[in-house]
Amino acid sequence: MVKTLRFDETAGELVILDQTKLPFKTEYIRISDAMTLYRAIKELAIRGAPAIGVGAALGLYAVALRFEDQNAESFVYSLEKTANFIASSRPTAKNLFYAADRMTAAARRGGTVAEILQNLKTEAFSIKEEDIALCRAIGLHGEALIKDGAALLTHCNAGALAAVEYGTALAPVYAAAEKGKKVKVYAGETRPLLQGARLTCFELANAGIETVLICDSAAAGLMARGEVDLVLVGCDRVASNGDFANKVGTLSLAVNAGYFGVPFYVAAPSSTLDGGISRGEEIIIEERDGGEIYEKFFEKPVAPAGIKTCNPAFDVTPASLVTGYITEKGVLKSI
Amino acid sequence: MVKTLRFDETAGELVILDQTKLPFKTEYIRISDAMTLYRAIKELAIRGAPAIGVGAALGLYAVALRFEDQNAESFVYSLEKTANFIASSRPTAKNLFYAADRMTAAARRGGTVAEILQNLKTEAFSIKEEDIALCRAIGLHGEALIKDGAALLTHCNAGALAAVEYGTALAPVYAAAEKGKKVKVYAGETRPLLQGARLTCFELANAGIETVLICDSAAAGLMARGEVDLVLVGCDRVASNGDFANKVGTLSLAVNAGYFGVPFYVAAPSSTLDGGISRGEEIIIEERDGGEIYEKFFEKPVAPAGIKTCNPAFDVTPASLVTGYITEKGVLKSI
Repeated sequence: MVKTLRFDETAGELVILDQTKLPFKTEYIRISDAMTLYRAIKELAIRGAPAIGVGAALGLYAVALRFEDQNAESFVYSLEKTANFIASSRPTAKNLFYAADRMTAAARRGGTVAEILQNLKTEAFSIKEEDIALCRAIGLHGEALIKDGAALLTHCNAGALAAVEYGTALAPVYAAAEKGKKVKVYAGETRPLLQGARLTCFELANAGIETVLICDSAAAGLMARGEVDLVLVGCDRVASNGDFANKVGTLSLAVNAGYFGVPFYVAAPSSTLDGGISRGEEIIIEERDGGEIYEKFFEKPVAPAGIKTCNPAFDVTPASLVTGYITEKGVLKSI
Repeated sequence: MVKTLRFDETAGELVILDQTKLPFKTEYIRISDAMTLYRAIKELAIRGAPAIGVGAALGLYAVALRFEDQNAESFVYSLEKTANFIASSRPTAKNLFYAADRMTAAARRGGTVAEILQNLKTEAFSIKEEDIALCRAIGLHGEALIKDGAALLTHCNAGALAAVEYGTALAPVYAAAEKGKKVKVYAGETRPLLQGARLTCFELANAGIETVLICDSAAAGLMARGEVDLVLVGCDRVASNGDFANKVGTLSLAVNAGYFGVPFYVAAPSSTLDGGISRGEEIIIEERDGGEIYEKFFEKPVAPAGIKTCNPAFDVTPASLVTGYITEKGVLKSI
């Protein structure tokens, strides 16, 4: 399985796969300073809510290894400042704030610089190991929902490339394949950044799972013809009422799944639950550059110069459209 | 306003704007043989159900001008053969078959080769003039649905570039603008061939109408936030129960509009009504080359080599999701 990140202990550096280059090139970025970490998250070299959380934690540890502060108080202050900066790279994924908060809390628990560094290392590696265990558990619980011969539909990439291993929405697919079930996955290309075409197709093809690439807007027609047994998506943040934010296009799939009677499941590891907000409307949605729609990836711009755009990275799906939440604790009807 | 086609009477040639080159280049294709006409339709140099119908009629006349048959019977046989060939270029748009049938019937009404040619000319120009009048009537009827300051959402291109003048779904927008109403149009980019980004943005910008380009899958989020007052789309074929086929992605918009309580109107000129079929399921949906999804327009392929695709050009929207049909006869609740 493809690996999104690892920590190089000799160099004290976080090493991430540069996902902006996939599926053309397998290139890595070594991270040991705050600006490189910030950019890697902002520009989606590392992406997917769980991977962003783990990357932020291990990245913060790598950056902290190079702090020149001699006393604990000043060291903790530097870490807090850096953690806030990294957390400002993207506004939607809960995991990023969760990881930054845990790293800051770990730093505060140390009495000396050496202790703080040890705490940061332990915390970052815990976050990483927890993510692997969480995704595995999601896979094993979600696997039961997938019948032999089933056709699933997924959006964006909530697979191994969005986490450390297995992924969230795709973890049940991997678990089903391991059990010998035949599974077909319709991958929405996921405009504008094509994470479905570039990443989901890449990792599923690598794993030998039958994958069919579709335009996002073709999903409704497939559902209408009864060709989709299950929709499975990941999420970036879940409000306490179960509304959740995920890649733009998810809401449309949920509404269509509801209309056509197709079960709609969201893989929701506990780290994406935001107890601090009550409803989806409170989730801040990242608005990204319009050039992503009309010029990125294209040979030349595909719209007339000066065109206005609206390019939200995410949308919010109401809890009422969710058949179940696949969590590490089991498949829940509500959250 | 941009002109999609004209007939050059001196040369006896159909001249069409090559829409595959828009918005980068304004190039024209001169048509006087069957293969060029077939390819122009098949490869979408001329596209949009009404324009295809008019183009097929005028193109058939240009081709017939060069038939070498000396007697009427053989001339009619050549015309039928050519009309069948042209009609096989794309399977979904009703207007194409409608135009081919009318041209064949016109040919059969002639006793001599000269009469047949005169009939073909009259019929082709009638089809063209009818299209202009039809679109204008649709515009005037539909205009009443658009409030001053309204935000509309449209899909693909059912504007002047899809017809001879005004278009179908965009005709009410032009009529509203003529009346001095302020209108904003959200244009879905329309994957995979980007008719929304390339064509709708181009023609609306040319007409000075505020246009905002979005990814198709962002439409649901806009509706959820109350930013869309009306969805307006064209159609390629309407079954007698009111189900209709239009560019892939239309069904998804209709389902979402229903869910979010946004009125959903389809511009349905009478030439797209197919009395021969009773329900949407009977409409043949064109499956196009998968390369349109993963390589066309892109600098390099965006999915791993060998990926399977599913690339229907259209989908079918059930009549139950349609608020009204904007026809040349008025806005009808059912068809």
